[in-house]
Amino acid sequence: MVCAIDISEKPELNDPILIEGLPGIGFVANIAALHLIKELKATRFVQIFSSSFQDFSVTIPGGMALSPSNELYYVKRSGASHDLIIWYGNTQALTTVGQYELVAKVLEIAHEFGCRFVISIGGFKKDEAQAVPGVYSTATDPDTMQLALDLGTKVMVGHVFGIAGLSVGLAKIRDMKGFSLLVDTPGMNPDLNAARYALITLGKYLGLDVDQSKLEESVLEIKEILESFGIIRSITEEKKKEEEQLRWFI
Amino acid sequence: MVCAIDISEKPELNDPILIEGLPGIGFVANIAALHLIKELKATRFVQIFSSSFQDFSVTIPGGMALSPSNELYYVKRSGASHDLIIWYGNTQALTTVGQYELVAKVLEIAHEFGCRFVISIGGFKKDEAQAVPGVYSTATDPDTMQLALDLGTKVMVGHVFGIAGLSVGLAKIRDMKGFSLLVDTPGMNPDLNAARYALITLGKYLGLDVDQSKLEESVLEIKEILESFGIIRSITEEKKKEEEQLRWFI
Amino acid sequence: MVCAIDISEKPELNDPILIEGLPGIGFVANIAALHLIKELKATRFVQIFSSSFQDFSVTIPGGMALSPSNELYYVKRSGASHDLIIWYGNTQALTTVGQYELVAKVLEIAHEFGCRFVISIGGFKKDEAQAVPGVYSTATDPDTMQLALDLGTKVMVGHVFGIAGLSVGLAKIRDMKGFSLLVDTPGMNPDLNAARYALITLGKYLGLDVDQSKLEESVLEIKEILESFGIIRSITEEKKKEEEQLRWFI
Amino acid sequence: MVCAIDISEKPELNDPILIEGLPGIGFVANIAALHLIKELKATRFVQIFSSSFQDFSVTIPGGMALSPSNELYYVKRSGASHDLIIWYGNTQALTTVGQYELVAKVLEIAHEFGCRFVISIGGFKKDEAQAVPGVYSTATDPDTMQLALDLGTKVMVGHVFGIAGLSVGLAKIRDMKGFSLLVDTPGMNPDLNAARYALITLGKYLGLDVDQSKLEESVLEIKEILESFGIIRSITEEKKKEEEQLRWFI
Repeated sequence: MVCAIDISEKPELNDPILIEGLPGIGFVANIAALHLIKELKATRFVQIFSSSFQDFSVTIPGGMALSPSNELYYVKRSGASHDLIIWYGNTQALTTVGQYELVAKVLEIAHEFGCRFVISIGGFKKDEAQAVPGVYSTATDPDTMQLALDLGTKVMVGHVFGIAGLSVGLAKIRDMKGFSLLVDTPGMNPDLNAARYALITLGKYLGLDVDQSKLEESVLEIKEILESFGIIRSITEEKKKEEEQLRWFI
Repeated sequence: MVCAIDISEKPELNDPILIEGLPGIGFVANIAALHLIKELKATRFVQIFSSSFQDFSVTIPGGMALSPSNELYYVKRSGASHDLIIWYGNTQALTTVGQYELVAKVLEIAHEFGCRFVISIGGFKKDEAQAVPGVYSTATDPDTMQLALDLGTKVMVGHVFGIAGLSVGLAKIRDMKGFSLLVDTPGMNPDLNAARYALITLGKYLGLDVDQSKLEESVLEIKEILESFGIIRSITEEKKKEEEQLRWFI
Repeated sequence: MVCAIDISEKPELNDPILIEGLPGIGFVANIAALHLIKELKATRFVQIFSSSFQDFSVTIPGGMALSPSNELYYVKRSGASHDLIIWYGNTQALTTVGQYELVAKVLEIAHEFGCRFVISIGGFKKDEAQAVPGVYSTATDPDTMQLALDLGTKVMVGHVFGIAGLSVGLAKIRDMKGFSLLVDTPGMNPDLNAARYALITLGKYLGLDVDQSKLEESVLEIKEILESFGIIRSITEEKKKEEEQLRWFI
Repeated sequence: MVCAIDISEKPELNDPILIEGLPGIGFVANIAALHLIKELKATRFVQIFSSSFQDFSVTIPGGMALSPSNELYYVKRSGASHDLIIWYGNTQALTTVGQYELVAKVLEIAHEFGCRFVISIGGFKKDEAQAVPGVYSTATDPDTMQLALDLGTKVMVGHVFGIAGLSVGLAKIRDMKGFSLLVDTPGMNPDLNAARYALITLGKYLGLDVDQSKLEESVLEIKEILESFGIIRSITEEKKKEEEQLRWFI
């Protein structure tokens, strides 16, 4: 199947921006995406299953079986110049080939719904937590880079692994532009503070003023989902096999 | 080839239910499926070969070469509200990608024959054998979960690996519903008692009263097939490479 | 590409029999196939490259670059009831998936040229060389098994790994019949004596009286090709990674 | 996606020759290709992304995100009998299957633009640096081999791994001819001297007189790109997993 796509609705979207929010170091993107989905009352319209996800189901309280999956949500914003597509999920793909397939498929779908701009979010591994974490960016082109720097980000130096790196790096396949927001984070646990700064920077760009008072709820929810999926532990271990010599900070 | 499908017959089936019965821990599903095939005189109509099965043939007494394969059998039940499709085989796929491909293909075929409901069977690893093993379930949705609980099952907590988990987790791709029946079993050998309780629970749901007097024959047959395939040993070892950190209990 | 196929000629063949002769333990099949190609002046009409072969070229004296490849040769036999298709090559595929793809592709091509019967050849690992090696067989069905036993073979017991096993095991996908001839051989080096007995048994079935006086030349040629490809050493090592717990005797 | 191809222009080319210049031991081909692109003011017309490249982006000074990619450039040469297609990139594929897919795709594209001849460049690992490194060649056929020998090359003996070997070995799939130029080089660092001799030999064949005064600039540029990609280190390590028993000298 490679990727099985289930599109439940075909919304008319106004020049939408794709926001990537999959699990990664510090789960910065994942927390931010879940929080946006809840605060902006986003609507799920696409579900993606990939044969490069883990081959199991996870039970949730009540007994329902959840599969590893990715989802796209849309947010219509009357009066704003861009609607949003939020890319959320409980896993990245387990293999390099699977990662490429997943990004290529999501960019293809987003493109079909009129999207021409992608913002990926990620953690940038620092040894120590910081009260005000730095936000770093990389972009598809100099003009877009300037847009990111204008938000107060610093120039990213180094590799951007996984979906956060690929979704900006491969944007050009679909003639899309975009940037990454990579926030300092010390480690493997869901990092509320890093997610807060990701949301602040993102909000500045999108003209969004997201209420952060319930951000901790999103962190706890993410933590519960990810622990039940064994993903807090297992993604890291899977990736280590392939790339153990490299620092992984999406 | 990924999956090569040989459909030898196209039966008209009445709202059939798919029953998954591949080898796994305790071989609970495999024994139950073989026993149903024999007792209900089920007819094989589909044979599936996957390039993710092992690349060998096995000889059986008399010299015939058997390949690793999966098969679908149908049972017509006059007067009953559901015919049956039994998914039997001597192996699961060797890789995560192969598992997804196999489940997706079987769900696709079953769906074509009108199936909208899947029941997967599996073992749930316990350290010690139990006279009356617990039966646990997980389901695609709350209503279906209630159907399973009404059979006397308990709510499953944790991961359901392999085909037993995927076939329920991916059912939604085909707009199908279903549940898993996971029976306590201590180990790696074909477990007659666990299979008995799987059949009792399944029979309750399907309104089937299957004679279990020859169940031991099915256990011995399964044991012989699986030992000749080296599968009792090798599936477990193959999977360990990928998922050694996780408990495998399909 | 998976498999790239180059068909240089489309001969009209009379109910041809496919003879599998790829490298394996003792190189029994490979020697026999090369010898048949030379003695019967077979004509190459198909060349197959697979992305599951090793990614290198090998230089031969004079400097030409050889890639790993498989080839099909045909032999027209006026007066005989079957023409021949000989499947020769300097490698099997490196992965399980590649092996399935390769067999499926060759069976598909052979079927297109009218072939409905396959004979695979292999070595059966014995600890010591034997003056008169045993020849074992396995078959697609009881009638075909009897044909093989009538040639003086014994019933094979156990696994038949790799192409020798798959080509008979998967024959049913194309509604083909066939048997394997597996000859006792002690080890990893090209085994002239085992190849001689494979050719004698095969000749009996096909009504072929192949001159064996130059068989040693074929052995030396095979040895040279395989050593230059590093295949005498490397196939074994590659396979060990996947199947080290199993005895490999195609 | 396997390979995503972006063709930005469809130039009319006059019987073009494909020159392979991907990273490999000594980065001989990579330096030579980059130098030709700069000196001949070649125009990029194709960009190739493969799901067998590494799943990350790399930031370059200024913050732009670069993905692993391959590129084709063309050079029109009025008065010459052959235009050029230069195959440049910052990576080879990470897996055997990916290497085959990549070569097959590039040969397919080059063929569409009228190319019937390929020259691959590579390093041939020697233990010590040599003031005048030897240049070795292998070819698709005896006539082409003679063309290479006439340039002063010696007959290559052994394996030619990776893209340098595959692109000549697989040329026959597209009815193309060609040869490899393999230059003595001691090690893993970009080797200016070996690249110089590759360019001299290549120039002799193509009737090109490339100014080499700025060759060191190309070496430094390659070094910077490759170090930022971690490729000087990581390709070698990746390949070791698969082929550690073999000497790698593309």
